[in-house]
Amino acid sequence: MTVQDTHTSAIGWHKGYVEGSRPDLRVPVRRVHLTNGDDVTLYDTSGPYTDPGVETDVRRGLAPLRENWIVARGDTEEYAGRPARPEDDGLKHTSPRGGLRNLDAVFPGRPRQPRRGRDGRQVTQLAYARRGEITPEMEYVAIRENVAPETVREEIAAGRAVLPANVNHPEIEPMIIGKKFLVKVNANIGNSAVTSSIEEEVDKMTWATRWGADTVMDLSTGRNIHTTREWVLRNSPVPIGTVPLYQALEKVDGKAEELTWQIYRDTVVEQAEQGVDYMTVHAGVLLRYVPLTARRKTGIVSRGGSIMAAWCLAHHKESFLYEHFEELCSILASYDVTYSLGDGLRPGSIADANDEAQFAELRTLGELNTIAKRHGVQTMIEGPGHVPMHKIKENIDLQQEVCEEAPFYTLGPLTTDVAPAYDHITSGIGAAMIAWWGTAMLCYVTPKEHLGLPDRDDVKTGVITYKIAAHAADLAKGHPGAQEWDDALSDARFEFRWEDQFNLAMDPDTARAFHDETLPAEPAKTAHFCSMCGPKFCSMKISQDIRRRHGGDLDTAEIDTEEIDAAGIEEGMAEKSREFAAAGNRVYLPLAE
Amino acid sequence: MTVQDTHTSAIGWHKGYVEGSRPDLRVPVRRVHLTNGDDVTLYDTSGPYTDPGVETDVRRGLAPLRENWIVARGDTEEYAGRPARPEDDGLKHTSPRGGLRNLDAVFPGRPRQPRRGRDGRQVTQLAYARRGEITPEMEYVAIRENVAPETVREEIAAGRAVLPANVNHPEIEPMIIGKKFLVKVNANIGNSAVTSSIEEEVDKMTWATRWGADTVMDLSTGRNIHTTREWVLRNSPVPIGTVPLYQALEKVDGKAEELTWQIYRDTVVEQAEQGVDYMTVHAGVLLRYVPLTARRKTGIVSRGGSIMAAWCLAHHKESFLYEHFEELCSILASYDVTYSLGDGLRPGSIADANDEAQFAELRTLGELNTIAKRHGVQTMIEGPGHVPMHKIKENIDLQQEVCEEAPFYTLGPLTTDVAPAYDHITSGIGAAMIAWWGTAMLCYVTPKEHLGLPDRDDVKTGVITYKIAAHAADLAKGHPGAQEWDDALSDARFEFRWEDQFNLAMDPDTARAFHDETLPAEPAKTAHFCSMCGPKFCSMKISQDIRRRHGGDLDTAEIDTEEIDAAGIEEGMAEKSREFAAAGNRVYLPLAE
Repeated sequence: MTVQDTHTSAIGWHKGYVEGSRPDLRVPVRRVHLTNGDDVTLYDTSGPYTDPGVETDVRRGLAPLRENWIVARGDTEEYAGRPARPEDDGLKHTSPRGGLRNLDAVFPGRPRQPRRGRDGRQVTQLAYARRGEITPEMEYVAIRENVAPETVREEIAAGRAVLPANVNHPEIEPMIIGKKFLVKVNANIGNSAVTSSIEEEVDKMTWATRWGADTVMDLSTGRNIHTTREWVLRNSPVPIGTVPLYQALEKVDGKAEELTWQIYRDTVVEQAEQGVDYMTVHAGVLLRYVPLTARRKTGIVSRGGSIMAAWCLAHHKESFLYEHFEELCSILASYDVTYSLGDGLRPGSIADANDEAQFAELRTLGELNTIAKRHGVQTMIEGPGHVPMHKIKENIDLQQEVCEEAPFYTLGPLTTDVAPAYDHITSGIGAAMIAWWGTAMLCYVTPKEHLGLPDRDDVKTGVITYKIAAHAADLAKGHPGAQEWDDALSDARFEFRWEDQFNLAMDPDTARAFHDETLPAEPAKTAHFCSMCGPKFCSMKISQDIRRRHGGDLDTAEIDTEEIDAAGIEEGMAEKSREFAAAGNRVYLPLAE
Repeated sequence: MTVQDTHTSAIGWHKGYVEGSRPDLRVPVRRVHLTNGDDVTLYDTSGPYTDPGVETDVRRGLAPLRENWIVARGDTEEYAGRPARPEDDGLKHTSPRGGLRNLDAVFPGRPRQPRRGRDGRQVTQLAYARRGEITPEMEYVAIRENVAPETVREEIAAGRAVLPANVNHPEIEPMIIGKKFLVKVNANIGNSAVTSSIEEEVDKMTWATRWGADTVMDLSTGRNIHTTREWVLRNSPVPIGTVPLYQALEKVDGKAEELTWQIYRDTVVEQAEQGVDYMTVHAGVLLRYVPLTARRKTGIVSRGGSIMAAWCLAHHKESFLYEHFEELCSILASYDVTYSLGDGLRPGSIADANDEAQFAELRTLGELNTIAKRHGVQTMIEGPGHVPMHKIKENIDLQQEVCEEAPFYTLGPLTTDVAPAYDHITSGIGAAMIAWWGTAMLCYVTPKEHLGLPDRDDVKTGVITYKIAAHAADLAKGHPGAQEWDDALSDARFEFRWEDQFNLAMDPDTARAFHDETLPAEPAKTAHFCSMCGPKFCSMKISQDIRRRHGGDLDTAEIDTEEIDAAGIEEGMAEKSREFAAAGNRVYLPLAE
């Protein structure tokens, strides 16, 4: 198994680290070296893969960065754990391939035992924050976000932010999700019964983080779910989310009515022991809400939501997720798995946006949020979906109200249904807006949405589109430091520092390639114009020349309405004009001047 | 010269026409034929090229659709016109190639004489609207927009909408730009000194309109400007806009200080005689505003703005465009050329958004708008630029206030500077928002913005991104009928009518190709799932099955909180469950049922 292209050439930028209060607390950053001697420091999600000083091997997995921190807290214990079973990978007991699972694919890394809270203790960042403790994880994200550690602790303690970090996923570089922090982006990967392999999924994960994904959800639904997840977890520098219901359904051969709390519970434990950092739980799809979807244009479009609706109707009983929610909380609390309370009834079309079914479920998620918090479980809330622009704000406002400002985590929303193949864009518009208004994390949508599974290029396009939405929101929210990046790039643009423009770009490779398509020669990289307008029409060049020519003279005091209107000043203007002619009559002075 | 791919296969949709009050008033529409027997009618900008019943030949040009309407009004006359000169195409008088211009490229179509208002009359749609006349052009757009002709007349008369239609461009299919109508999209094309040919530009124009461009601006700056424009105009079914200043500057070899009102005026007449429908005029860049840009991060980024600023400073005189604005109005009024008052001082970076320079110019554009209206000239106002999301609304609000609700025509705005190569997306976000808030036309931005000249693929990506922004805004504004398109596509999606989804998509080709990448077989086009989730996990399928299974039973009356809470009802639930088992225990009933 190989991972392509995750290492980046050291030209123009390098991976740096900011050290915290202890030597094992080193926060990665991307340092862009500008040709004018300045450095710009950017948030970095790419993990050790972009550090030429670290040898990575996907067969061994990443180093367990947080292990000492977790052990040092002394509130967890290792234990034998749940034995792996063939059905974990979607294999029959009587599988002709024999054995427990597809052994070729088994993750070969260091042996490990799962860990959990000792004596049913809550070992969550929320519990620590509440009792006033600033964990190394909190200090880590404080450095990453350039805020005080106490701010991080306060936001987590208040339930306004989550720091997803399963005790069984020590490999991650901690990150935080909350409206006071940088807007985050999640990338979905996952194989299905129809397509994709383990290798592809691991590659997509590293590829997504390379371009800026802050978390990755493994939504596999086909074979080898357990094994794929193991590979992904052991190699992921970012928190991993899942929807345990998908795997549970595989265990009952896709028959929703055969799902039970026991099978689901067992799947949650299986995944928590592996290290899944957050889990989508569609516990708000209640039996009585299902009929509310009957007159919808597109019914229930969440997979989890539709599975639970089918179960509820088949049994004519309340959802087992809702009924057993408190028990589920105590399991999650003992691993520090964060809830992502799923919006199983989210609208799947413009026509269904903000309807009764959607908002009824959201209010139930509010109740569940309160219960989860009582159990010390970190919680975020998932949001829609397909929503026209004028109905977006109501979503975040209601969510913040009924969920006590728990982080909102939205899919888009898509602002129109009519552009399949461009839903990264239809949804990027809604994502930017809802993030501006307070959404903490955005789940990306790729160009393949509604049409097929994303490949590598789609993952990159989806991540970059969503990083744009997130950063646009950071700017609009006035996030401290967000505009420095824009300013650095705009300075480079105005001063024709092409290489700096490329290196500061969200996607340096494509920016450089597009430039080179029309002006490929190396001198063009230092040219004071581009192929768009050519030298004569370059407004930046003219503008710069004006500034050079007039220097300090160019201020409002010199030329104002009065001066122009007053007839007596006319000669002064003529004089200025003669001065100009005497200086060579050139507006476009050589740039060396 | 050939034009590729503008003809579209007739599978799934065809070009139709809606006839007005006279036989020569036939409004084109795109009729999508659904597999369920329904038809969906969409707005169509693609011109005769997509009508298999019309033979088109770019060497002859399009038929002069409006000629009889113009002649019948009896207020215009043909005249000899301004003789073509070598410098119109950027050639020296002493050009070694000799002759008037590059004869190989001369447009070979039917001979024509220019036309203008008789005795200095105002022959504008604004003038007609004001005196209560509903022209065939107004009726045409009323049918296109599905509104009453009187609404069109009123909006034009009030200056809240423009119908750009030079009397010398009879080939166009009339369209309207105003906040009460569908949001429009402009695509820029144009060669530069560095790259691109006439043939490419004509091809880009037809290609852009094929994907939905409502107007096209020819921003050529290199050689053959006059000839390129002739080819574009004679073959364009949509209004063509230009920036006459670019050509004027070519005539003085790129020396801004050598520009004169006479050269500019002559260029405007040259272009008006050819049939340019709207012209960007940067008459708001006043001498006293130039110093306001001195402390900007990116100075002046409008080409026209920087040229005028250089001229003003070189002469220390007020802009000749501002000084001669009334004369310019009378010229434009005699051809019905619409003003697009240019925002020469628009911000080119997030840092410069909404600054004093920008808003000072906007207020001047407001004054000029009033003057233009007095002369009967249709007028729209150009807007920025680079603006973070939280500063966008102020732009449209101020523009509407100081320009008496004249149509706003904005470039984006780009909501961040950090993603060159993705500026169609950074700006698509801002475009959707500002259009929702009242912008009437959006100037597209392609992925090549800031990097190079757009090629064919970039033009398509830019147009589709902006059609998405425009349609998202139409939805958010509650434009009558806008949601029908979304509803039709979402119905097709829910009912697994894949071919209908593709045919209704903004880009059927790409949607189909993406689907086929993972599920290429023909049966997959009728499959009740897609490759994203596979058959077991398809929420649409489960949701549809639920609806089928429960049919009319599925309403809120049947299952409500009371029912579930009341213990006595439990047996009723168990009964429902037994019924379900008796019916075969299948949630997923065959779809034939």
